[in-house]
Amino acid sequence: MARNIYIENMPLEKALALFMEHLKDCKWFQLESEEIDVLSSLGRWTAEPVLAGRSSPHYMASAMDGIAVQAASTYHASEVNPINLALKEILVVDTGDYVPPEYDAVIMIEDVNFINDQVQIIKPAVPWQHIRSIGEDLVEQDMIVPSLSLIGPYELASFRTASVNRVQVIKKPVVAIIPTGTELIETGNANMTPGQIVESNSRMLAGLCQEWGAEALRHEIVIDDKELIRQAVVEMGKKADLIIICSGSSAGREDYTSTIVQELGHLIVHGLATRPGKPAILGIIDEKPVIGVPGYPISAQLIFSLFARPILFRKIGQEVPDLPSMECSISRKLPSHAGVDEFVNVNVARISGQPIAYPLNRGAGLSSILVKSDGVVHIPRGNEGLDAGSSCQVILNRSPRVIDNTLVCLGSHDMSIDFLIDILQREQGLRMVSTNVGSMGGIMSLSRRETHCAGLHLLDYDSGDYNVSYLKKYLPQEKLLLINLVKRHQGLVVKKGNPLHIQGIKDLSRPEIRFINRQKGAGTRLLLDYLLNREKLSSQDINGYNREEYTHLAVASSVKNDGCDTGLAIYASAKVMNLDFIPIEVEHYDLCILPDLLSKKQLDGLLAAIHSPQFRARVTGFGGYELDLSGQTIYEYTANNMQ
Amino acid sequence: MARNIYIENMPLEKALALFMEHLKDCKWFQLESEEIDVLSSLGRWTAEPVLAGRSSPHYMASAMDGIAVQAASTYHASEVNPINLALKEILVVDTGDYVPPEYDAVIMIEDVNFINDQVQIIKPAVPWQHIRSIGEDLVEQDMIVPSLSLIGPYELASFRTASVNRVQVIKKPVVAIIPTGTELIETGNANMTPGQIVESNSRMLAGLCQEWGAEALRHEIVIDDKELIRQAVVEMGKKADLIIICSGSSAGREDYTSTIVQELGHLIVHGLATRPGKPAILGIIDEKPVIGVPGYPISAQLIFSLFARPILFRKIGQEVPDLPSMECSISRKLPSHAGVDEFVNVNVARISGQPIAYPLNRGAGLSSILVKSDGVVHIPRGNEGLDAGSSCQVILNRSPRVIDNTLVCLGSHDMSIDFLIDILQREQGLRMVSTNVGSMGGIMSLSRRETHCAGLHLLDYDSGDYNVSYLKKYLPQEKLLLINLVKRHQGLVVKKGNPLHIQGIKDLSRPEIRFINRQKGAGTRLLLDYLLNREKLSSQDINGYNREEYTHLAVASSVKNDGCDTGLAIYASAKVMNLDFIPIEVEHYDLCILPDLLSKKQLDGLLAAIHSPQFRARVTGFGGYELDLSGQTIYEYTANNMQ
Repeated sequence: MARNIYIENMPLEKALALFMEHLKDCKWFQLESEEIDVLSSLGRWTAEPVLAGRSSPHYMASAMDGIAVQAASTYHASEVNPINLALKEILVVDTGDYVPPEYDAVIMIEDVNFINDQVQIIKPAVPWQHIRSIGEDLVEQDMIVPSLSLIGPYELASFRTASVNRVQVIKKPVVAIIPTGTELIETGNANMTPGQIVESNSRMLAGLCQEWGAEALRHEIVIDDKELIRQAVVEMGKKADLIIICSGSSAGREDYTSTIVQELGHLIVHGLATRPGKPAILGIIDEKPVIGVPGYPISAQLIFSLFARPILFRKIGQEVPDLPSMECSISRKLPSHAGVDEFVNVNVARISGQPIAYPLNRGAGLSSILVKSDGVVHIPRGNEGLDAGSSCQVILNRSPRVIDNTLVCLGSHDMSIDFLIDILQREQGLRMVSTNVGSMGGIMSLSRRETHCAGLHLLDYDSGDYNVSYLKKYLPQEKLLLINLVKRHQGLVVKKGNPLHIQGIKDLSRPEIRFINRQKGAGTRLLLDYLLNREKLSSQDINGYNREEYTHLAVASSVKNDGCDTGLAIYASAKVMNLDFIPIEVEHYDLCILPDLLSKKQLDGLLAAIHSPQFRARVTGFGGYELDLSGQTIYEYTANNMQ
Repeated sequence: MARNIYIENMPLEKALALFMEHLKDCKWFQLESEEIDVLSSLGRWTAEPVLAGRSSPHYMASAMDGIAVQAASTYHASEVNPINLALKEILVVDTGDYVPPEYDAVIMIEDVNFINDQVQIIKPAVPWQHIRSIGEDLVEQDMIVPSLSLIGPYELASFRTASVNRVQVIKKPVVAIIPTGTELIETGNANMTPGQIVESNSRMLAGLCQEWGAEALRHEIVIDDKELIRQAVVEMGKKADLIIICSGSSAGREDYTSTIVQELGHLIVHGLATRPGKPAILGIIDEKPVIGVPGYPISAQLIFSLFARPILFRKIGQEVPDLPSMECSISRKLPSHAGVDEFVNVNVARISGQPIAYPLNRGAGLSSILVKSDGVVHIPRGNEGLDAGSSCQVILNRSPRVIDNTLVCLGSHDMSIDFLIDILQREQGLRMVSTNVGSMGGIMSLSRRETHCAGLHLLDYDSGDYNVSYLKKYLPQEKLLLINLVKRHQGLVVKKGNPLHIQGIKDLSRPEIRFINRQKGAGTRLLLDYLLNREKLSSQDINGYNREEYTHLAVASSVKNDGCDTGLAIYASAKVMNLDFIPIEVEHYDLCILPDLLSKKQLDGLLAAIHSPQFRARVTGFGGYELDLSGQTIYEYTANNMQ
């Protein structure tokens, strides 16, 4: 049971410097080249100057459609005194045709009259006019491009034109990726057992290799067996320039990477002062670098980007490209440990022109965060984080054009928001990013003017109305527009066949029934409280009132997987999970928009999407919704913003 | 012999609008999708929202290496009163392991002491701590990305994680490319006969398709036979979304494209008011667009970029990406015909921070210009061009970083400049662009401060010195540095075996000897004049004095291909062309640098390259040079620039 649970906390820049030093010592950055067919050279870098193999053109060529003549024979031609030449004195040529040595000029066809067996010329030709001399484009042995030039379509065409058919290019670095872990399976399927995980980190890293001009060589999954992993490392070391061992880099019972690196070569670093990415490993085996990347996808991506990216570019003789970045203000406080370099994924959008960075969930295990992320904020060591509203530099992984087009929707989540996102992107070319912060979170985001719009379903206990009284209270002076998106059925999600015979809210107080609640500030939680109150029940009567999930689907998923017996959620969530549903209430789900924060294109696009037949069709097709109010303005406050 | 020599001059925007209208009419922009394996989906666009196929994790999972416990059993633990649990009450788990329903918390391994067959706990566990709930990353049926999302490494990994193994993506548009022309051959070789041309336009266009996300389907070369071309069009029309017919788009004897389009479908445009690119064809056959591109590479590239690029992006549901552009001042007057939209390729570099555009040769037949080009200046119709120094927008096809790193060398050309360019790029990461404007052209460029440096070999007839007297005369107040690059052998290049027994300059007056000269302002031409003067010969005595070539290699190439019998050039040119060489003079070839125009990195890099052993080795290996002065400062003027 002994574990080596202590790993280092080496500062990032020290680890990088040590790694580079070792690689320089083994001359790993020396350029290597190979000869390939020019036809497969697109995207490669030349290893030598490329010289024209043959002149282009390699003969005197006509530059026009016309006739080749001896210039001297035309010297006296004029409109008044045209000269007639016999057909045997001339040669009809098209553009590119060979002009033999007996001719020294070409007259363009527009200036020639064919009259029976003669041609009439009304203007003298100047020697060598409209003749492309040999090598006009490229002379044999001309340098077409120097070393380390990128071969694009134009280079490729020019090489071919000059009879260069093979070319010396820089070898692509080969990156061996070895996924390890007994829990891993190659491909997801319906029969996965608890504890099985689909291996996907190697796929992600292979994709990054492709983007960086390297070639990935993936090993099949190796179970947590030290000898098998060791064999895989030895085997891949023979074929690759860089070896990546996925997971097993920590200090757990079955984390063998550091020991293997130590035994086969030299362990440079084990443990980094970064978050995420702490359990990273750097080493050298047989003069080749080895990187042990942690198993969580965001840690794996970070470590691979920090260490593999710079060395792979330098291996092919390229400076490491700067990543584009953008100065943003951060939407909320972002604490950080002073002892580590912290990297936080963010969404980025412009609110009234000002770029805002929205921190995403920092869970390193969430593959979905990398998909959502527009960029990364790096909080250097020695720093305790960023205050809300302070300025930060975001290293972007999404194009500024996409960011400029982005609408933000912070509030309650509903399936209809996903439909809207899809229709906005497809029909309007607009991107919407949506984070579920609950209805009250949405109200707060609106009041801080950090979101363009928010999905809300806040029931006013007194009036029975939705949302309006909250807006009047929390956003009294704000110019705003409240549009109904859908009415939706809220109810209790229960297992197929409803084995516990749950009939309504009252049943939640039965002690054997395990409930799951939504997070504080969620409209559905407020609805539950309202319903409990109506039934004269207290939160203490409910087994699981304090267990929280963040979405309707997560509640339904928990029911489905027997994490609980029931939860309050919308019909849609029961439907997609193939569960039963006991309807309780029909509630309004509205979208509150702050029109001043949107460009005209954004506002028009958003309204068009809400009113589109595609949106209505998608919602109707799904079921559990009512559309009689959809698209209607529920409330509007048009006074000028007083701020 | 009848030709239809009249084609239209349709304005560009009208042609584009007509083309778009026709494509809309045939619903060509409707999105088409196909299902593919996620593993081959990198770089593709989703055709539908992608929903999680299975929750991730799909079970309660440990978020730490540690032990799973019942939280209730730990409530009273503290440092003072540790609690001991039997091994059967806990479960040792690694990160990602399944936590069965009998446990509801995980304690991290660092907080646990194993004592014999018990574990000691000193801190209570909170229910659900360090447990990843089902769907924490993605809940089954969550939308991972909406339609029209680009699938990158992160999307791919997230799909796999959520058991999405196949995905609906937008079909890649298929572009059929049909090269036509009896003069074309597939691949360059040593036995090409005059009039043969290597077909390379289709390769260039195929490369562009790849960059734009389309798939190219190249037909083999079709000779100029109307029926064969027609068959090829019909055959490819069945497989492709867009048909490109390369060349034959003009109105020459064998230009069949317009007739074929007319017979098979609808001819929309024949002839554009653009330069280059006039003889372009746009049409529709069987609801599919057809573009006839001219045969010259620069015309082909322009027409393909103007018409195929926008429709291919729209075909996959994407807005056409803006091309990056940069405001530059133009180095010299750029005349343009008011009746056409003109597109001129340029080099771009910064001189003291200010971006300058240097127009390149406008010959549409020069494949090498596309390789050299950093971007294009568009001079709209109705405009007579740009004055020297005026501002213009350059649409870039090279990254701004490369442009920022670029050194300009306008002046006389020598092979040693190519060696220098190669070493600068390889060893210093600096790009140098060099245009041969002759030594006097170099002096003028230096005096206009539009070049960082210039290669000069200007002989002073009186002193016998090189370059210094010219600099004193033309750049009297300019801070400058003159460094010898090489001394080189100038002489007469003659055919192998010297069949005409040419011995020296005197022989050039023999009437049967066909000479070829260099352009005005070239140092070699000045040298010739000096030598003729020394021998008391006049330019009128020389057969071919007025025929000009622009480089040493072009002179040698002309000798080799029997365009002439001899010319004055450097040894190197005779060597690479395998010709004989009669040495006449040893001349100085110096580099004049204006140090104030270079950044420190550029100046240091340039001097390092000149002094590098690699440079000396390359020059020595080549022969015909002397290096005793190489790298030495010949002259320096350090007064501050008075301008």
